[in-house]
Amino acid sequence: MRKHELARMIDHTALGPAVSAARVEELCREAIRHGFAAVCIPPAHVGLAARLLQSEGPAVCTVVGFPHGHHTPEVKAFEARAAGGEGAREIDMVINVAALKDGDYASVLADIRAVRDALEKVAERPVLKVILECALLEDREKTAGAILAQAAGADFVKTSTGFASGGATVDDVALLRRVVAPHVGVKAAGGIGDYDTALRMIEAGASRLGASRSAAILEGAPD
Amino acid sequence: MRKHELARMIDHTALGPAVSAARVEELCREAIRHGFAAVCIPPAHVGLAARLLQSEGPAVCTVVGFPHGHHTPEVKAFEARAAGGEGAREIDMVINVAALKDGDYASVLADIRAVRDALEKVAERPVLKVILECALLEDREKTAGAILAQAAGADFVKTSTGFASGGATVDDVALLRRVVAPHVGVKAAGGIGDYDTALRMIEAGASRLGASRSAAILEGAPD
Repeated sequence: MRKHELARMIDHTALGPAVSAARVEELCREAIRHGFAAVCIPPAHVGLAARLLQSEGPAVCTVVGFPHGHHTPEVKAFEARAAGGEGAREIDMVINVAALKDGDYASVLADIRAVRDALEKVAERPVLKVILECALLEDREKTAGAILAQAAGADFVKTSTGFASGGATVDDVALLRRVVAPHVGVKAAGGIGDYDTALRMIEAGASRLGASRSAAILEGAPD
Repeated sequence: MRKHELARMIDHTALGPAVSAARVEELCREAIRHGFAAVCIPPAHVGLAARLLQSEGPAVCTVVGFPHGHHTPEVKAFEARAAGGEGAREIDMVINVAALKDGDYASVLADIRAVRDALEKVAERPVLKVILECALLEDREKTAGAILAQAAGADFVKTSTGFASGGATVDDVALLRRVVAPHVGVKAAGGIGDYDTALRMIEAGASRLGASRSAAILEGAPD
């Protein structure tokens, strides 16, 4: 896969408690230069990134209920709508992992739906990616989570936050790809740091990659 | 320090993406049995814990903007007020760590004040603890964070979320104790797992401890 094709599949990402304004600015410049799909940044930096990327290709992506997913549906909905209002065109939300593991599917569904409904109120509805946090789940829980995400109107299911014990695996990507319908994308994130790993994820069915080491990934790709 | 005195200083804690309803129920029972100050649980479980602890001694404590602190002030304020409305009597919020490290003190202050103002609107104003995440900070940043927290009306400053690279240290507790006024408490949290460690934190100036291994801590104390 050629560099520019691969770049279009990458959400160039800097998340965590200590992401500075300068780092976000740098991330945006890199995203424009390489033609990444989006920058994925902390919610408090959405306004800044939206100003920097205003008329540029890369979208502003931010996270909701991140990284533990333990916030109430009302808080996630509020956060999502506010982020959309500030210019986020993509929203990566974390599901209520505890509810999924408790088998409380109605709560998992309602939680995702609350965010999806909130995004309907944004002028151009942002893309919704639903993070399952696969490292904490059994396969049957991953399957249930993906089905519920699709049912609630997710545009993508996403493997991981990058802050659990493990990130994306080829097996998880393949599982999610089998479970959701073709119109639902699969985003692999967490620990993807080179071209070979990226390619394996794509071959397994990933349509989007989340990565902080995006430049290193591109380096391995042919021009 | 005797068991029942020590118990009154402990926030019995279960946080993270996969804390089940059953675990929260168990935590509440343990808190009642041992006489802990509070249970500290994920926001989505506040309603459950409030029902279980209704007429009991331990308070319901939950977290806001947790654990990355990267949410906007508006989202933290919304989350805090909603948690108070559901029965949380104590709120442990995470500051905007990135803004503090950027030296943007006005934003750090406004962020904490937004939460404090939101809590004023709750019938009985919940206690506000402000988490600095010391593992990510230089000493001068810890000092600035503690001063800003006190200025914004915090009841406690707290060392750590328990989800960064490090938790409470004796040095950090002593630093925070030196910086804030006597009416502001210091909560040590993260990695406190036995009586000796707990005692060292208290001797350094901690007035509250956050712990998941609370039973093990009490075990070492005299009856």
